[in-house]
Amino acid sequence: DDELESLKGEVRGPLQLSVVTTGKYFMPHLLGHFLQEHPGVEPHLKFTNRARVMERLMENRDDFVVMGQIPDDKRLVAYPFLENILGVVAPAGHPLADRRNLEIEEVLRERFITREPGSGTRLVLDRLLESRHLEVEPYMELGSSEAIKQAVLAGIGVAVLSLHAIRLEQATGKLSVLDVKGFPLRRRWYAVHLKGKRLSLVASTFLDFILSESHRVLDR
Amino acid sequence: DDELESLKGEVRGPLQLSVVTTGKYFMPHLLGHFLQEHPGVEPHLKFTNRARVMERLMENRDDFVVMGQIPDDKRLVAYPFLENILGVVAPAGHPLADRRNLEIEEVLRERFITREPGSGTRLVLDRLLESRHLEVEPYMELGSSEAIKQAVLAGIGVAVLSLHAIRLEQATGKLSVLDVKGFPLRRRWYAVHLKGKRLSLVASTFLDFILSESHRVLDR
Repeated sequence: DDELESLKGEVRGPLQLSVVTTGKYFMPHLLGHFLQEHPGVEPHLKFTNRARVMERLMENRDDFVVMGQIPDDKRLVAYPFLENILGVVAPAGHPLADRRNLEIEEVLRERFITREPGSGTRLVLDRLLESRHLEVEPYMELGSSEAIKQAVLAGIGVAVLSLHAIRLEQATGKLSVLDVKGFPLRRRWYAVHLKGKRLSLVASTFLDFILSESHRVLDR
Repeated sequence: DDELESLKGEVRGPLQLSVVTTGKYFMPHLLGHFLQEHPGVEPHLKFTNRARVMERLMENRDDFVVMGQIPDDKRLVAYPFLENILGVVAPAGHPLADRRNLEIEEVLRERFITREPGSGTRLVLDRLLESRHLEVEPYMELGSSEAIKQAVLAGIGVAVLSLHAIRLEQATGKLSVLDVKGFPLRRRWYAVHLKGKRLSLVASTFLDFILSESHRVLDR
């Protein structure tokens, strides 16, 4: 037990992560649990857009980065962890909320709010539509999931959002997830670093933690 | 009545606004109400950091911008509207949550999470501490109110947040506003443009709307 304590005691010092903006809904919760076990860790979290995360990844500026859509690049190592479940979200009382098996075409006729081109969530949506030979003309493009969530809450339109982002609003009945064919889309979050990178003890311990514990921590 | 309709009908076309990131909690709701009255308006909202909003303001790129701390600059016209009420926020069950009349020094001994230097919320906090000859060594600096809110929810620490950002979490008992002397801080949101700018009918109608209706819309 003492030995265990001393081993645990070594996990201290800086942890520098860059995370795509939508990661703000789960990464603080994973980190919060990790810090309970390892209070000597000094966390530095940077939430930024996908382009900037990629840049920092290639420049080896972080212990590792967290993103959704990973590029096909042999210089990278990617570890899948948490599921990112994307649904079509509408304000409470929306006429489509009680319908079942909606065609995506019906949803596209609504005022559709999206992330800006180049964001991971937008990429997933664009690829889905492309595979169905469909297009969307967004009513509004916004730079963060939170802005989109507030716009949907305000009745401005519907949007594809990570269900992690709307847990409290869904639980309190303020937002509904529409029953659209082909949805929810299940993607993954990945921890990514350059091949050959030597992780610090703090970074490798945190990586092990998120690979093994993410679902347990977040499903509570 | 017909005349009124025709007058209303003219309020259509683009509306381009830049808003500091914390504005995402109220601006979509104001806009949502406005769009119900004027569905022909084509809204373009850009949520970005204070530095970028200032840049766009000086370059006259928007109909107007929305920010909290306005610079003392004679080239600008600023219209105060909504109150921005800032409180010290802690996770439910925090030991300080049941205490009354806390000294700010007690709060500063907690793990303190802040926005990055240069953000409006951080400016307000720094000025308050400066006036009391106090300093804070943030445990963590994060680039958005939402990331900070999630970090507080995750038990990582306490933070100063706009109460607009935590309405649902406060109502459902997940976050508490601590009773700290000198808090809540009451500030204002401002609509700002360059002096002499001629606003479009859409922009001036929306400006009138937020000046007169913000509190009514958001207090519901």
